[in-house]
Amino acid sequence: MRFARADRTFYSTPECAREMDLHILEHRLRVTSLRKAGLERYTHGLIKLVFLRDKSRCKFFSLTEMPDDYTLVLDEEGFKELPQTDYLQVAEATWLALNVVSNGHSSTCSQTIGVTKIAKSVIAPLAQHNVSVFMLSTYQTDFILVRESDLPAVIHTLSEEFSIYKEVNGESVPVDSNNVTNGFIKPKTAASPTVHPVLSPKNQFCVMSLDPDTLPTIATILMDVMFYSASLKARSADQDLGYIRFFSFSLIDGYISIVVDTQTQKRFPSNLLLTSASSELWRMVRIGGQPLGFGIKSRDEVNTEDKGEYFQNRLRDYADKTDECGIVAQISEPLANADISAYYISTFNFDHALVPEEDIDSVITMLQKRQNGER
Amino acid sequence: MRFARADRTFYSTPECAREMDLHILEHRLRVTSLRKAGLERYTHGLIKLVFLRDKSRCKFFSLTEMPDDYTLVLDEEGFKELPQTDYLQVAEATWLALNVVSNGHSSTCSQTIGVTKIAKSVIAPLAQHNVSVFMLSTYQTDFILVRESDLPAVIHTLSEEFSIYKEVNGESVPVDSNNVTNGFIKPKTAASPTVHPVLSPKNQFCVMSLDPDTLPTIATILMDVMFYSASLKARSADQDLGYIRFFSFSLIDGYISIVVDTQTQKRFPSNLLLTSASSELWRMVRIGGQPLGFGIKSRDEVNTEDKGEYFQNRLRDYADKTDECGIVAQISEPLANADISAYYISTFNFDHALVPEEDIDSVITMLQKRQNGER
Repeated sequence: MRFARADRTFYSTPECAREMDLHILEHRLRVTSLRKAGLERYTHGLIKLVFLRDKSRCKFFSLTEMPDDYTLVLDEEGFKELPQTDYLQVAEATWLALNVVSNGHSSTCSQTIGVTKIAKSVIAPLAQHNVSVFMLSTYQTDFILVRESDLPAVIHTLSEEFSIYKEVNGESVPVDSNNVTNGFIKPKTAASPTVHPVLSPKNQFCVMSLDPDTLPTIATILMDVMFYSASLKARSADQDLGYIRFFSFSLIDGYISIVVDTQTQKRFPSNLLLTSASSELWRMVRIGGQPLGFGIKSRDEVNTEDKGEYFQNRLRDYADKTDECGIVAQISEPLANADISAYYISTFNFDHALVPEEDIDSVITMLQKRQNGER
Repeated sequence: MRFARADRTFYSTPECAREMDLHILEHRLRVTSLRKAGLERYTHGLIKLVFLRDKSRCKFFSLTEMPDDYTLVLDEEGFKELPQTDYLQVAEATWLALNVVSNGHSSTCSQTIGVTKIAKSVIAPLAQHNVSVFMLSTYQTDFILVRESDLPAVIHTLSEEFSIYKEVNGESVPVDSNNVTNGFIKPKTAASPTVHPVLSPKNQFCVMSLDPDTLPTIATILMDVMFYSASLKARSADQDLGYIRFFSFSLIDGYISIVVDTQTQKRFPSNLLLTSASSELWRMVRIGGQPLGFGIKSRDEVNTEDKGEYFQNRLRDYADKTDECGIVAQISEPLANADISAYYISTFNFDHALVPEEDIDSVITMLQKRQNGER
């Protein structure tokens, strides 16, 4: 299975949906958050996963650096490389990645890319059925992560609009939705989700790719950016100026995707990184003044003496808690209505939409109206 | 100060010594042993020191991989990057590096290179005066490490044969030996040292250099060799076949030196690594069936339940113990007599001489005779 936006056409409106297939990928994924204070313990494993592909059987690796932590999403082979310490929070579920692909017809319903394409056909119906999603847009495609336990609900919800296939040993096997959802009880429609505040840092971002064979050429720069440039001092300087520290790298089924701000991009040799043909610059909307669905406050924010106990309690709470869903839908639906492209990257504590620079003002206005209760 | 064998002439016989200068370098060094089981904790710091030179002010870094541990010799800036754990043993002293350089005269007394050059003028006199040395030969030069506390004895011992300079803020300042050794009590002549067994693995080694600007090009291969290829399984396979796991990398004052066996060398692109003009192959003589001067048994070898206590006792013993000196002299003197070149690399537990492949048989015969009490 190949992921390459350039080779594919996405369809966004319900009329088009039947010309799309939904693939449930084989990767069984863990979603984790690594606090920066613990990074040194993890460099060994992370470098192996990123740079020494023949040393590991990991096929799905995504790292997103935020100001305080790294969100790591990786399959079980990758997860094995991470030592279990207090610095690493692991979401309790196993997650599966869904991917929407054209089934070969050539008509195009929209020129937009990214999450906007699947807002109405995938994201909105899943939110309506109370299925929370974790989005991971890459240069090549958009992965929709859902909990393995939600799979019957996902299949039930989406089988009307899509032909659904499950990848089994690299082969696409059609899913008989009647069989799968047999005995599945349709959940209550979700309560209207909390509207989270949005933040728009000043950075301009690029979404890029790289031939994996040239990865060694930029290994030292990439290691520096990923693991050695994250001082607390730099972080507060960024924040004072209205910038955010955000960097995302994924290596999924042999495809590399990098999201980097223009300041950091200058550190790489310009001839190796591929940008999309439009070579657009993107601006970020970060969603969530409070942590979102995975929300466990970082220890640094906890002032009590007994941090360990606090943490245990939060983790216990979390296991019981219905985590938030519908956040991706809240953002992607208005973007789809306005026909604005968007990459979307979820992390442990926040969600991030990247929209074309020329659209950022209208997007912020749109989302602020929503916050004020207007639609 | 530049180190490049090709640019320099060494002098080995006493008659020539006055045409050599001895420089006491500014680096203040720590000698440490890192057990392989603890490597993952150290990858972060080690990668920074090797590959991200602008992130650290470390100017002296040497890593030698052995079957069970890594010996790391590094200055205080480098030492700061190593977390202090039970996996890291640190020799108690601060060490200084001595370097013998031609003072500009052009006569050549010997064509041999390495420790052989300085066996009679430096190594033998220091052994006679009970000063233990830790040798570190590189592609470019030979560093003679001595304890800082032995410096008066060193100056006293060598000032007859050499003009001695101390590097101070990058300048060479002549050392007034009368002043320094004022109040210095000449130590007892050392007892005849233990004769240690020698071992000669089958590997052929190359001694190479690399332009530091091309280091990023081989970063992933080098990381793989240094930190990701050391499985216990590989180790025992090596041993069964009579091979040894040995790899040495140093980055000292901007010069890179690599000692690697021919099997591992094949993993690197051949056009980047410089070998000496002779492109000789070298064979190893490892000295010490028992650990030498720094000798603390590795925990793996200890069968008692209470390993922690064992270790503490060993460390206490060690602090009191007069460690062995004269080992380098034992090996280098016969080599000098036979006019055989040798690189010499000391590690925490063993010493290693590398001699030209064509000389290995005669060297082993020579050292075995010595073991049998013949001279």
